[in-house]
Amino acid sequence: MTTTDQPTDHVSVTNTMASEDSPETDQLSRLYKHFEREHLNPLWTQRDSLMPTTPAPSAVPFVWKWSTLYPLAQRAGDLVPVGRGGERRAIALANPGLGGVPYATPTLWAAIQYLGPKETAPEHRHSQNAFRFVVEGEGVWTVVNGDPVAMRRGDFLLTPGWHFHGHHNETDQPMAWIDGLDLPFVHYTDTGFFEFGSECVTDGSTPDISRSERLWAHPGLRPLVGLDAKASSPIAAYRWERTDAALREQLALQDEGFAATTEPDHAAVRYTNPTTGGDVMPTIRAEFHRLRAGALTPARRTVGSAVYQVFDGSGRFRLGEHTHAVDKGDLIVVPSWVKWSIRADTELDLFMFSDAPIVERLHFIRTLTTDGA
Amino acid sequence: MTTTDQPTDHVSVTNTMASEDSPETDQLSRLYKHFEREHLNPLWTQRDSLMPTTPAPSAVPFVWKWSTLYPLAQRAGDLVPVGRGGERRAIALANPGLGGVPYATPTLWAAIQYLGPKETAPEHRHSQNAFRFVVEGEGVWTVVNGDPVAMRRGDFLLTPGWHFHGHHNETDQPMAWIDGLDLPFVHYTDTGFFEFGSECVTDGSTPDISRSERLWAHPGLRPLVGLDAKASSPIAAYRWERTDAALREQLALQDEGFAATTEPDHAAVRYTNPTTGGDVMPTIRAEFHRLRAGALTPARRTVGSAVYQVFDGSGRFRLGEHTHAVDKGDLIVVPSWVKWSIRADTELDLFMFSDAPIVERLHFIRTLTTDGA
Amino acid sequence: MTTTDQPTDHVSVTNTMASEDSPETDQLSRLYKHFEREHLNPLWTQRDSLMPTTPAPSAVPFVWKWSTLYPLAQRAGDLVPVGRGGERRAIALANPGLGGVPYATPTLWAAIQYLGPKETAPEHRHSQNAFRFVVEGEGVWTVVNGDPVAMRRGDFLLTPGWHFHGHHNETDQPMAWIDGLDLPFVHYTDTGFFEFGSECVTDGSTPDISRSERLWAHPGLRPLVGLDAKASSPIAAYRWERTDAALREQLALQDEGFAATTEPDHAAVRYTNPTTGGDVMPTIRAEFHRLRAGALTPARRTVGSAVYQVFDGSGRFRLGEHTHAVDKGDLIVVPSWVKWSIRADTELDLFMFSDAPIVERLHFIRTLTTDGA
Amino acid sequence: MTTTDQPTDHVSVTNTMASEDSPETDQLSRLYKHFEREHLNPLWTQRDSLMPTTPAPSAVPFVWKWSTLYPLAQRAGDLVPVGRGGERRAIALANPGLGGVPYATPTLWAAIQYLGPKETAPEHRHSQNAFRFVVEGEGVWTVVNGDPVAMRRGDFLLTPGWHFHGHHNETDQPMAWIDGLDLPFVHYTDTGFFEFGSECVTDGSTPDISRSERLWAHPGLRPLVGLDAKASSPIAAYRWERTDAALREQLALQDEGFAATTEPDHAAVRYTNPTTGGDVMPTIRAEFHRLRAGALTPARRTVGSAVYQVFDGSGRFRLGEHTHAVDKGDLIVVPSWVKWSIRADTELDLFMFSDAPIVERLHFIRTLTTDGA
Repeated sequence: MTTTDQPTDHVSVTNTMASEDSPETDQLSRLYKHFEREHLNPLWTQRDSLMPTTPAPSAVPFVWKWSTLYPLAQRAGDLVPVGRGGERRAIALANPGLGGVPYATPTLWAAIQYLGPKETAPEHRHSQNAFRFVVEGEGVWTVVNGDPVAMRRGDFLLTPGWHFHGHHNETDQPMAWIDGLDLPFVHYTDTGFFEFGSECVTDGSTPDISRSERLWAHPGLRPLVGLDAKASSPIAAYRWERTDAALREQLALQDEGFAATTEPDHAAVRYTNPTTGGDVMPTIRAEFHRLRAGALTPARRTVGSAVYQVFDGSGRFRLGEHTHAVDKGDLIVVPSWVKWSIRADTELDLFMFSDAPIVERLHFIRTLTTDGA
Repeated sequence: MTTTDQPTDHVSVTNTMASEDSPETDQLSRLYKHFEREHLNPLWTQRDSLMPTTPAPSAVPFVWKWSTLYPLAQRAGDLVPVGRGGERRAIALANPGLGGVPYATPTLWAAIQYLGPKETAPEHRHSQNAFRFVVEGEGVWTVVNGDPVAMRRGDFLLTPGWHFHGHHNETDQPMAWIDGLDLPFVHYTDTGFFEFGSECVTDGSTPDISRSERLWAHPGLRPLVGLDAKASSPIAAYRWERTDAALREQLALQDEGFAATTEPDHAAVRYTNPTTGGDVMPTIRAEFHRLRAGALTPARRTVGSAVYQVFDGSGRFRLGEHTHAVDKGDLIVVPSWVKWSIRADTELDLFMFSDAPIVERLHFIRTLTTDGA
Repeated sequence: MTTTDQPTDHVSVTNTMASEDSPETDQLSRLYKHFEREHLNPLWTQRDSLMPTTPAPSAVPFVWKWSTLYPLAQRAGDLVPVGRGGERRAIALANPGLGGVPYATPTLWAAIQYLGPKETAPEHRHSQNAFRFVVEGEGVWTVVNGDPVAMRRGDFLLTPGWHFHGHHNETDQPMAWIDGLDLPFVHYTDTGFFEFGSECVTDGSTPDISRSERLWAHPGLRPLVGLDAKASSPIAAYRWERTDAALREQLALQDEGFAATTEPDHAAVRYTNPTTGGDVMPTIRAEFHRLRAGALTPARRTVGSAVYQVFDGSGRFRLGEHTHAVDKGDLIVVPSWVKWSIRADTELDLFMFSDAPIVERLHFIRTLTTDGA
Repeated sequence: MTTTDQPTDHVSVTNTMASEDSPETDQLSRLYKHFEREHLNPLWTQRDSLMPTTPAPSAVPFVWKWSTLYPLAQRAGDLVPVGRGGERRAIALANPGLGGVPYATPTLWAAIQYLGPKETAPEHRHSQNAFRFVVEGEGVWTVVNGDPVAMRRGDFLLTPGWHFHGHHNETDQPMAWIDGLDLPFVHYTDTGFFEFGSECVTDGSTPDISRSERLWAHPGLRPLVGLDAKASSPIAAYRWERTDAALREQLALQDEGFAATTEPDHAAVRYTNPTTGGDVMPTIRAEFHRLRAGALTPARRTVGSAVYQVFDGSGRFRLGEHTHAVDKGDLIVVPSWVKWSIRADTELDLFMFSDAPIVERLHFIRTLTTDGA
């Protein structure tokens, strides 16, 4: 064991340190050995690492460059078939602080998924809540519970827990996008089920918009056949045109003198479940942010972890003590309670997802906004 | 006025009947007189009228013809100025069962409001929740908390409780629409406040869409500046184009074989508050229904009262034992627990509002669907 | 004013007054007659009475003396049998402002119910939510959905909507108590159903406490068989011993220096539904207040109406401009937005019920606390 | 298997196995090395371990004997002082499947805490929600936000997140109890804050019941000073006498022929938050179960993990394929989706806590009851 595991790493380290600080005697040493034999473990030698003063995540702030990710995904496309068993040609961000597990943060999975020309990723379903976000390309349909959903640049697409889904590429071009899931959380809490579905997609048609959108994506209007509150949004695709329009209007309203932006020159929308007004899925929050060139967000710390992807433009993320220049497609991880801020060098469009619904529903939320902190 | 008042009418009648049935003696008569002097009133002589087996509304099913309403509104436009004090040139439906009070049902107010060329209805605000629905015409802006909202055919427009609002007609043509309020309910429960505002509208600009729509009318997207649940929808106008599109899609989905319509050939949407997914205002539900020619809804009884307006087409409302032919603009009142059904002679578009949120939030809801009942 | 009916009275009066103020012409007069024929009613002549600046209830503040009520109830006991049809020997408070209807306030029914020795009030059920509060006596069991519930001084007993219930007196003494219902509200909204049940009570046993209490009245503990949220509390009886203990503890805690009382020397508890923490029934709030001798509550106005009963002690209610001395058993009505305050001459124990859940769930709540208002 | 870390163990194992199954080539090997350098990790080689068909917890079913725990706690009492820094003499159950971390399950901490005669554990507070349950002894007061709470056999005591708390033993006898916390969950999600408080308890008085109970532990009654919904229960102590009475009543009601027990001869209560009717704390459910001698629960699988402690009596836990005899004080861990059932040899009293609120609020709940499964 090279102590790369999470979350035990700094616990065991502290354990050792603590025992050095203790009034170590033979008797105590024998007691601790006895504890170990009986599968017991004292608090007092590791209290400070188990219960730090502020969150002390093992996960570290990190940036993955799209210019690195995409060629590696292409290479995988050449070498690795997609099919039953492996199910998806998805390459996950493995946070360097988490010991090699394929987790962007303790709770969140983020991966680039790559589908070659005419390829099909077979259908399956799982308890894990999933989404896709498309930073470039088009031509793939994801089929969610039998409903074909076109994927295009800027679209945010949902596959809530236990919905069957498969993907098929109808073009002669490959396509890549990012997948976001609560897979680490589900794995950690032992809450996940998985079931294989059809080898092919169950509906191979290629409509411009999904049936879910035709039924649900009308602002402020609900079909009378869908009046119950649902755990997850019934809208399978949040289209770029609408997100872009909402952001443009916020900035225009700001310029006309009305309160509409989150901060000056910072427009932002949250993707929501129209049956509740809340987050799109029980464990995952998703938002889109637009900063005008020159905008700088105040330094913040928030409980819970997040992943950003640059959709367009360039800027700099300040994460703890380091600043990272970012460009289109780059993925940025912000662990819990790390101080962060964003500066836009050009107009900067950012997709964001986080585990905030977990943190909020369980009443752990805290946010600190302070440039001096 | 010869005892046309509501809700005391059948109570007092029953009181008399009951006392005839009682073992009337001088002693008892003296006791009842003593009760009266002390402001007391026995249950046993009127129990059956106070607590009927099923709801026994004083309000009656009734239809007002647009062809009657509109000319009378025009005539009022000629004779009655609009201005401070009276505030609005609104003519209310007075349910014939309710003794002359200007109430469409015990809880709901429905009126035709008429604004002449270049006229302005001054700003005010009140606890009563209000909306407008436009069956024809355009050229008026309603200004809600300073936000100018264009009114056009098919639009559903909100003025939730305690929002300042005024109306101004920018054209050389008159315009009429219907107002819906919970005024009777607020009057009955003694919950209303009223405050005068500006004589003129506070923003005389005439944009195509309101700021509220620019900020809020994006399906599934919430601005980060508005994340709290609100009692009423922040969307000031639900535009006809979107309502119409949602209904068309439901019927198209039905034709493609998918569950999307309420009943075969009956599409329907509910207007909702995007911050909760629930009704647009705490006391008023609003929906739009489209029936294809020939469609017939099953006979239903529901607790609570509703008002329909024909937006387009023609058909027949069966209300209790009577059938009423209806056309564009006609207003139909369905009191509580009256058996009703609708038959569409042409494609029939119907706007509907009701007091269902009151009935549901207070747990009195019951619905009975049965053709044989 | 001879028309005393509610809620039309001041509307019709104002209507007349308003028309006198209008630029009355023959044409206008004809128009108004035309309106009337077509069951229409203009807003502008009566806007101020329909939408007053602050709530202008027809109901008036009023006090009924127990020393008047009880002998009249006894007299009714001598003259009027209790049985099927009339169902209950209940004599309702008829607010003098409401034109003779048996309503304490527009929404609330309050009555003294009297059951002679060995009498039985037959079982029935209705949509109306009901409770009983016992100011003196014992020996009656109310049987709620088959569960016999002993009634004793100080107990607060529930019969939520659509629960079968009957009462039987097992003693040689009469017993009287007050009934509270949302009967006026249910009558007004046309939401009520009624069904006869057994002529005799379905369980004639006379246990000290009900099965509902044995299952539910354990603080902070829920049976695993009852984990769903219920519209109404499953506790059939809130016993005096517990209410009294809770109030005593609040005052003792205050004396020890801890925040526990509502105001200095004013202890108060709300009866709640343990499945939600909210009000006991969807339309009725119930509380118990204890003021130490000399305590004076600040003058308040609240939207919604309430009824108090003095359980013990004596004091004075200031209601609007008048002060009323009150003693054990007296019932006091506080209409909406009337300024009121209470002064305790001795230690003063007060039971209170109101329509606050209606007002709060529908977002009409406002409260103003000010001695100068 | 020597790698015992959680949650990476079977992931890494599977990773290796999967790569053996893959069409391993030099190119692929180079690609995987490239992935590793770039902190990337493919899904397809480990999909089955990351997303098992049903939950595949690393945590194992396990039983700790009180007869082992208590002497070890005593020994720690002899050797290890309690004080600032280590804070508590608490010895945690370390699930053998979780690689040595002091976690009973992935989400739950369970420890025996031991306080010697006249000892004091200093005050602190933390985001972690905590409770204590007392299987034997008395004489310690836990002081929660300044409120002294006596600890006695059978009591369930709360310390919700961010409440200051310390413990002091006023007697000449040691006392031990169990602590339950969501510490693993908080550590895993990086949501925890910690703050030291007073070295001594801030109120050294020793009342029989706490102020929180005096204000809150009245069934169905809420103080008017505490009407908001609270994240955690304001009741600091759920006393044994009340729990026992509730259980006795359920069994008595069953014997009288009424539905009150969870299963025949199986009474159970859930500890709840009286401000919501829900679980006592946002992450932890707690219940008490009583089985009559001979009772056998049906075999169940549930998503989420639980810990039981035998409060009294003896019986057998069937956990997966093994049966464990248990006696007073023994602690039993039931990991997610493990098939389990309980047989009571004598009357068997069981305290239980679990992470069910996490599982339910995030919509991952599933339960399967089947003797054949």
